[in-house]
Amino acid sequence: MSEDTKITNIGEFGLINSLTEGLVLQHTSTVKGVGDDAAVLKFDNQFVVVTTDMLTEGIHFNLMYTPLKHLGYKAVISNLSDIYAMNGTATQIVVSMAISKKFTNEWIEELYSGIRLACEKYKVDLVGGDITSSLTGLNLSITALGTVDDKKITYRSGAGENDLICVSGDLGAAYMGLQLLEREKKVFQDNPDVQPDMEGHDYVLERQLKPEARKDIVEKLSELNILPTSMIDISDGLSSEILHICNQSGLGCKIYADKIPIDGETGLMAQEFNMEPIVAALHGGEDYELLFTAKISDFDTLSQQEGIHIIGYMAAKDEGYYLIPGQGSPIELKAQGWDGFREEEA
Amino acid sequence: MSEDTKITNIGEFGLINSLTEGLVLQHTSTVKGVGDDAAVLKFDNQFVVVTTDMLTEGIHFNLMYTPLKHLGYKAVISNLSDIYAMNGTATQIVVSMAISKKFTNEWIEELYSGIRLACEKYKVDLVGGDITSSLTGLNLSITALGTVDDKKITYRSGAGENDLICVSGDLGAAYMGLQLLEREKKVFQDNPDVQPDMEGHDYVLERQLKPEARKDIVEKLSELNILPTSMIDISDGLSSEILHICNQSGLGCKIYADKIPIDGETGLMAQEFNMEPIVAALHGGEDYELLFTAKISDFDTLSQQEGIHIIGYMAAKDEGYYLIPGQGSPIELKAQGWDGFREEEA
Repeated sequence: MSEDTKITNIGEFGLINSLTEGLVLQHTSTVKGVGDDAAVLKFDNQFVVVTTDMLTEGIHFNLMYTPLKHLGYKAVISNLSDIYAMNGTATQIVVSMAISKKFTNEWIEELYSGIRLACEKYKVDLVGGDITSSLTGLNLSITALGTVDDKKITYRSGAGENDLICVSGDLGAAYMGLQLLEREKKVFQDNPDVQPDMEGHDYVLERQLKPEARKDIVEKLSELNILPTSMIDISDGLSSEILHICNQSGLGCKIYADKIPIDGETGLMAQEFNMEPIVAALHGGEDYELLFTAKISDFDTLSQQEGIHIIGYMAAKDEGYYLIPGQGSPIELKAQGWDGFREEEA
Repeated sequence: MSEDTKITNIGEFGLINSLTEGLVLQHTSTVKGVGDDAAVLKFDNQFVVVTTDMLTEGIHFNLMYTPLKHLGYKAVISNLSDIYAMNGTATQIVVSMAISKKFTNEWIEELYSGIRLACEKYKVDLVGGDITSSLTGLNLSITALGTVDDKKITYRSGAGENDLICVSGDLGAAYMGLQLLEREKKVFQDNPDVQPDMEGHDYVLERQLKPEARKDIVEKLSELNILPTSMIDISDGLSSEILHICNQSGLGCKIYADKIPIDGETGLMAQEFNMEPIVAALHGGEDYELLFTAKISDFDTLSQQEGIHIIGYMAAKDEGYYLIPGQGSPIELKAQGWDGFREEEA
């Protein structure tokens, strides 16, 4: 067994590549299989996007500081975010969960109340699921479906050279929220009498515990008549996501450090933790913002939009993948985003 | 916490009912939500069925005697079975899994080889998924999609009074296979030098470890121009499944014990375990056969089909739900099928 390859050595993406290599698609209704935010299917003349995400206790969430309602909400959001990243409209979800015996009906109802709240807010129908037991821990798996106009599907592979790189909202806050929760958990474990010190950190906590999916950005771009050339949602950190777009579009990129949007509270939190805010923005996960590329002819319109930030441009492949700091030499971008298999995060 | 309701007291179906009560469906593309083998959606003019199932280590399978390839195969089968139970054609699946650190790449590839084998055999496209880690145990969640002719959708609710009740194949074998595996596991644990005694039990073992979904029955019924009035797949035992049809169709039923198809090997195995074979057929799960109702005018055609058995008929609701034994008084049918939450099975 020691000769077998540990998954940590190859990572999730390497593993998925190896497992899905050479898959032959048999149905004409399958337009695009594995490899983007969602699969694209075609039923009659309607293009449908499908995505699935699994959250496991102890890996993606800690029930010590994640309220069940928030967990349910976030589990839906992380799936809807993938639908929006395809430029789609989320329409239905199915929810599967495995729960251990410690869970009571009331706990599950709490979890479901978050799922239902997200469904109501994003106008998505909960149409099915499976509830079963587990020996230990909670496991939550959601599959989301959506519709998309076939002329407007945004694959990761569509970026062109010199296209603008844009992100919505701000980055790194969800990661700093997680750091704060982890710190206060440790303080509490060491001394249960000490009250957690969360004051003034509402924003980073909300970004971690109750994130939103950027349906509004997809709608805004549509109103502005701007069709992104590629799009992906930021669940694993900016650095990892832009590299997906680069790899699948066969291009390089240049990103300007001082253009990356970071909220003031994220900056202060990072300072408290003695880390550079940009590290949280580049490598922190779970922001669920949209990262997209657009034609340079859309520059004027995009640069005037609140909540959309132009942070760089797509370069030729041989120019590599670089972050350009305010001062000093360009830094090569690497995928160090959140990965459930990596061991360095205790 | 002691005031909260334990899930074992209400069961999976009660819980799902309570969680999904009052759900408002917002999309015209949602034709039928929670409550059947699969949800029914409509994209353009194509009706699409969607179903999801989760398997957890220690509850649905034991890796001590379940080869990973078989597990992958079975996980796909259990989903496809739900699509066929809607009278649909399975077209795509997405696969999510959470795996603990003990899993190597080679193990996962073994699991995937079973998933891919089932996809090839049933002509289904694997179009997406998620692989993540878990603290302990393997968790596998699959969502399957299929297409269905809207005039041929078979809901659980469509049975009429006096309709014939039919099942495909034979019942109880998967359950007896499980009993055998559990027995040999205990023998092995008590004395690792004793070789497991599996000889002559190929059929029940195969039914447990590598079940098939009855795509062929759906195709045969279509060729025969027989449209079932209702259909469900038998994953929780005949007794539990016929009660779903009764409840959703607002009817009762009469099932003749000596008409229930039980393979000879299942009978011998039951004898070895000192149990009545019919108990395995009524309450044993995981056979993945189809249970359907049909018009009495189809009697002649159905009674001539190999692999299809007419076992009873739908009665008025006030006649109740009864098993008619060869001798003695009718026995009321109860849902004692496999339920992941029930505690009596160690």
